[in-house]
Amino acid sequence: MAMDNKMMLMIPGPTPVPEQVLLAMAKHPIGHRSGDFSKIMEEVTNNLKWLHQTQNDVLILTASGTGAMEAGIINFLSAGDRVLVGDNGKFGERWALVAKAYGLQVDVISAEWGKPLDPEEFRAKLEADTEKAIKAVIITHSETSTGVLNDLETINKYVKAHGEALIIVDTVTSLGASNVPVDEWGLDVVASGSQKGYMIPPGLGFVAVSPKAWKAYETATLPKFYLDLGKYKKDAAKNSNPFTPPVNLFYALQAALNMMKAEGLENIFARHQRLTQATRAAVKAMGLPLFAPDDAASPAITAVIPDRVDAEQVRSVMKKRYDVLLAGGQDHLKGKIFRIGHLGFVCDRDILSAIGALEGTLQELGYEGAVPGAGVAAAAKVFANS
Amino acid sequence: MAMDNKMMLMIPGPTPVPEQVLLAMAKHPIGHRSGDFSKIMEEVTNNLKWLHQTQNDVLILTASGTGAMEAGIINFLSAGDRVLVGDNGKFGERWALVAKAYGLQVDVISAEWGKPLDPEEFRAKLEADTEKAIKAVIITHSETSTGVLNDLETINKYVKAHGEALIIVDTVTSLGASNVPVDEWGLDVVASGSQKGYMIPPGLGFVAVSPKAWKAYETATLPKFYLDLGKYKKDAAKNSNPFTPPVNLFYALQAALNMMKAEGLENIFARHQRLTQATRAAVKAMGLPLFAPDDAASPAITAVIPDRVDAEQVRSVMKKRYDVLLAGGQDHLKGKIFRIGHLGFVCDRDILSAIGALEGTLQELGYEGAVPGAGVAAAAKVFANS
Repeated sequence: MAMDNKMMLMIPGPTPVPEQVLLAMAKHPIGHRSGDFSKIMEEVTNNLKWLHQTQNDVLILTASGTGAMEAGIINFLSAGDRVLVGDNGKFGERWALVAKAYGLQVDVISAEWGKPLDPEEFRAKLEADTEKAIKAVIITHSETSTGVLNDLETINKYVKAHGEALIIVDTVTSLGASNVPVDEWGLDVVASGSQKGYMIPPGLGFVAVSPKAWKAYETATLPKFYLDLGKYKKDAAKNSNPFTPPVNLFYALQAALNMMKAEGLENIFARHQRLTQATRAAVKAMGLPLFAPDDAASPAITAVIPDRVDAEQVRSVMKKRYDVLLAGGQDHLKGKIFRIGHLGFVCDRDILSAIGALEGTLQELGYEGAVPGAGVAAAAKVFANS
Repeated sequence: MAMDNKMMLMIPGPTPVPEQVLLAMAKHPIGHRSGDFSKIMEEVTNNLKWLHQTQNDVLILTASGTGAMEAGIINFLSAGDRVLVGDNGKFGERWALVAKAYGLQVDVISAEWGKPLDPEEFRAKLEADTEKAIKAVIITHSETSTGVLNDLETINKYVKAHGEALIIVDTVTSLGASNVPVDEWGLDVVASGSQKGYMIPPGLGFVAVSPKAWKAYETATLPKFYLDLGKYKKDAAKNSNPFTPPVNLFYALQAALNMMKAEGLENIFARHQRLTQATRAAVKAMGLPLFAPDDAASPAITAVIPDRVDAEQVRSVMKKRYDVLLAGGQDHLKGKIFRIGHLGFVCDRDILSAIGALEGTLQELGYEGAVPGAGVAAAAKVFANS
């Protein structure tokens, strides 16, 4: 029953933070113009390139993921530019709002929340654009609000075939969870945030920028200053920052990236795949409907749309009795779905804990849709076979 | 001689962080949409109003001070609007650049670096503006690059006499160090940053906004999304945030504001006044020229422009032998001045330590402009008499 400081975060951010990252953060700040800080800047920048599988610049902003994504949009475009924006959830919707706020001509390709974007719709629009008026395609890779992973690889192929448009991607809950090979796929602008796969608290945003995007930057005229990525690039070349960086979050970033390197990218991706499969198998075994289809399952979050039990009651018992925090639905999904985060510093045991708590919660709520224990058994089976 | 983890920060930011603030930051993050976080948000917002001596909204951004100040400018103006910008240092210069980046019509009132802005120049321009075309006056209160405190109170009186223009102020190194009574003076937009008087690491920006400024917001058309203060105001009313806040920096903010309340505003201001006077007395006693005049001395930082010893050599010995980090000059002052920070979590003893180290440094550099010990004696005399 609700103990202080015992809450287990199973939300899509902030995600659990390892002890060594918390302790790294508790060190006294050093001067951000010192040689010692430059060394940290150099190390984390190199490790960010490793994480992004890229030789492109990866820039670090003091901002939430939204700030990073906004920077990724406004630095490479001018008012009136035509952009295609994929919208199948809260975040896709947000990027359309950002684009409109800056006077871009926004062409939205949408899908029902819970369903993936259809790459063919992008192909059709891009092929029809023989005048090459489309300057960018903006999509969300893992749509956090619904637990849907969009088919970035295929959509990006159509962008590449178009030739002119930049591909600008929100990878906030996919980077560090599933494979996003920035150079291999040729992704132009890739934005992410610290409180996700990075395993550190919120406060840092990241933007990877390709040479093609930098070329667009030269002629882009949208106003910017704090989010002007050219300033960050210029200073990063000297292992410095244009504006005071959050030194303690850099300590955290340094520690977390070293943990990620020790685990290795392949292992990180395999782990998230395993956690996702185990969670989905357990949810199915409990007779609860999954919100996203199997072939478009986010590696970060699993959304459940229960039909015989109230989603908010589930969240409430999970929190109050079992000290497990799940996310609810956003906007029109509020009260209709609950979301189980399995992103970042999450191990196999955590899934069994969360599923066990979910089974206990269903029992408490008088749910009769499944054999008690079936959820944990199904998750454990996935682990045993992987 | 240069010990690990022993560096004493005497720069204008990051400033020293109390142990209890560091430890608060090392707690595991909680969900930012939880009731527990709402309570923190409510508490820190109330305490921020106390610190600002205001009933106005005080909004919290994940950003450096520059991000907060940019938000303070772009939310209340439209392209082509005429603004007066005071420029007598690196930061005044920066706000002119921000204003220009957004297409504002910028009228710069400048003073030589090291000298305060002349309020009479503001009076003249504002009185001449009978058509009320000037939409805002933008100034830096404590100019960190030079250690000059501009006469905000007097300049603001002329702005009030004008009637139409907003007063937008960078108080990054004055808030929490000297008196900035937002409501009493009627300051419309007041921006600050966490790694200063707040005694916490960098990463948070703050903007206080008056009802008059909110009225201007309604018709302001500069594009914005992440820095759109209307979104922060709307969510702050529900003790929430539009974008994921840096939860651990909020823990730090909560702890630091409670320390500040325990000390009390009058005591905080008196302490900074005392540290400033002691530092200046010591510098004079050592025969070193001060860069800013006595009657425009910043409460945060004291700049010294040595004529018989090299500024960078001073910084180097201070750092390497005495583990004291001083700031250097910026831009054309690089290599010409050094700056002693005395902002935030700094006590009388710290000034004696720094001055003692400075005396040792001067001795090591063969400086013969003062009787050894005169600096510490002069500082101690200020303390003894206050």
